[in-house]
Amino acid sequence: MKPKDLRLMALLAPVKGQLERMREVLAEELRGDSPAVADMTDHLGRFKGKQLRGAVVLLAGQATGNMSDEHATVAAIVELIHLATLVHDDVLDGADVRRRVACVHARWDNQVAVLLGDLLYSRAFGRSTELSSRLCSQVLSATTRDLCAGEIDQAASRYHFEMSLPEYERIAGAKTAGLYAAAAELGASYPGGTAEARSLMRAYGWEMGLAFQIVDDCLDLMGDKQTVGKSVGTDVEDGKVTLPVLHVYGEADEATRAAIRDVYTRAGLAERAVALRGTCDLTAGIERALLRARALVESARGRLASFPTSPARAALDRVGDYVLERKW
Amino acid sequence: MKPKDLRLMALLAPVKGQLERMREVLAEELRGDSPAVADMTDHLGRFKGKQLRGAVVLLAGQATGNMSDEHATVAAIVELIHLATLVHDDVLDGADVRRRVACVHARWDNQVAVLLGDLLYSRAFGRSTELSSRLCSQVLSATTRDLCAGEIDQAASRYHFEMSLPEYERIAGAKTAGLYAAAAELGASYPGGTAEARSLMRAYGWEMGLAFQIVDDCLDLMGDKQTVGKSVGTDVEDGKVTLPVLHVYGEADEATRAAIRDVYTRAGLAERAVALRGTCDLTAGIERALLRARALVESARGRLASFPTSPARAALDRVGDYVLERKW
Repeated sequence: MKPKDLRLMALLAPVKGQLERMREVLAEELRGDSPAVADMTDHLGRFKGKQLRGAVVLLAGQATGNMSDEHATVAAIVELIHLATLVHDDVLDGADVRRRVACVHARWDNQVAVLLGDLLYSRAFGRSTELSSRLCSQVLSATTRDLCAGEIDQAASRYHFEMSLPEYERIAGAKTAGLYAAAAELGASYPGGTAEARSLMRAYGWEMGLAFQIVDDCLDLMGDKQTVGKSVGTDVEDGKVTLPVLHVYGEADEATRAAIRDVYTRAGLAERAVALRGTCDLTAGIERALLRARALVESARGRLASFPTSPARAALDRVGDYVLERKW
Repeated sequence: MKPKDLRLMALLAPVKGQLERMREVLAEELRGDSPAVADMTDHLGRFKGKQLRGAVVLLAGQATGNMSDEHATVAAIVELIHLATLVHDDVLDGADVRRRVACVHARWDNQVAVLLGDLLYSRAFGRSTELSSRLCSQVLSATTRDLCAGEIDQAASRYHFEMSLPEYERIAGAKTAGLYAAAAELGASYPGGTAEARSLMRAYGWEMGLAFQIVDDCLDLMGDKQTVGKSVGTDVEDGKVTLPVLHVYGEADEATRAAIRDVYTRAGLAERAVALRGTCDLTAGIERALLRARALVESARGRLASFPTSPARAALDRVGDYVLERKW
């Protein structure tokens, strides 16, 4: 087991039993309706993500004293939705197909990835309709709606080098922070809980999730494929102008700006992230972005202060270190 | 206005007012969260489909004496889900992108089509969670789940020339009949209604929907692009062995079978449906398929017998003529 896994395990110790239950529900929902479906969902079942979103449901439930028998199912539903978004992220555009098809090793083609993601969404919603309260269905359908709208806005903002920082945070928030916010909110309020705990935990999840996304942006730009464990540099390939690049571009002279735009858009250029690092010094942009991520984590931690000390509260606090220090 | 539109309008006259309300709810749900989203959803709003699934909700509600204030919303949700499946159907595989990109004139690329479909699904589910009963959420999430599984099974059954007829109907049923069944079932049972009415209407919808799909298969094989109003021949292009072809293949000698397989699979062949018509006589297969469609329609009509005569019941009966005689 790698050190990063051990660290995550230690973090999640307070909800170990519930996490097991969450994984059981997840496995139930990944069971196939037919051999063809089973072939795909089995494959997904072997994919072990961080499952941090599901864990946040459980930790928030425990930290607020609101843990119910259904929390593990709520956590599994959150993870199913996350899994659906990952499967749909793998759908490639025409241009990407031509550019990436040799290195993607996709197990299935686009249409099947779309259907598999849809199946996961419908199972997630279906499972949520069996719970004793409708809150989970309501919060998660609204979150998914915002998530899709955020991704559409991001796609529409490609090559937009002069995006304002609030606009960047609005989009990054919708696409990533929203599901963390929903996870923490549901943990604190499903099926009951105080309005104050719900609102504090929602803010905690939003800020932690936004910090997570900013660190993701930095890793994609600077990270090493071996360590990150997934392809890096894809944001630049996709024309996504992320927070560090916005900072660097904002401070650069016109010649550097033109060079940055050229790296993003020149036809046929390979390894654009590497080319970008050769074109300008990204260090200051990365540092400023990480400063913002740290401020968000600190603010998120502050939200926890009104809850009694507990192993779960301590774990939610340590999620901040994990978000800031992770290399994958 | 074309004669086909007039005919559909006459069919839907008993629920005209409710259909207007359904279209208003649909328009609300197609309102954009942001300029980029609005750009897409506006475009979808201009797309006028047959809206037959939504109409079935309303007609079944009226024919069973179960019409509620929320039926129009349930109908709009059914249409939203149908719209989401259409948007996701437009996502192309790598091979298709290369083959079709010149003639598709796609307004957006694959990734955005995926997100837009996801957004429609999440709006549909979100709206259903606001209704007074959870039945709509439950029936439609289960239906969507089966629909996706059916489509996955269909993708896994490409070039499967010896598929059994029950297997064909199972898959075609899941991918098309299920949503008609859900529409009729919800009409009869949302939020109340008798178990018998619910079960009869569900069977009505399933049989009518399966007949609809079989006619679709025939139109795709034999239809003229001008009349059908969408691209035809795509089933053969996609390797889908539909009911008429299954019949022809099942009766053919080995030489003809080899020729049929060749038309489906030979690299670089254009206009495969045309080539297929040149390779074998499809008439008998089409006739047998339409015979099955007629039997399904008759069975569906029989389900209506226990409801009192009414304009809505008469319209549900005439849906059968519409399904069998439509040329688009």
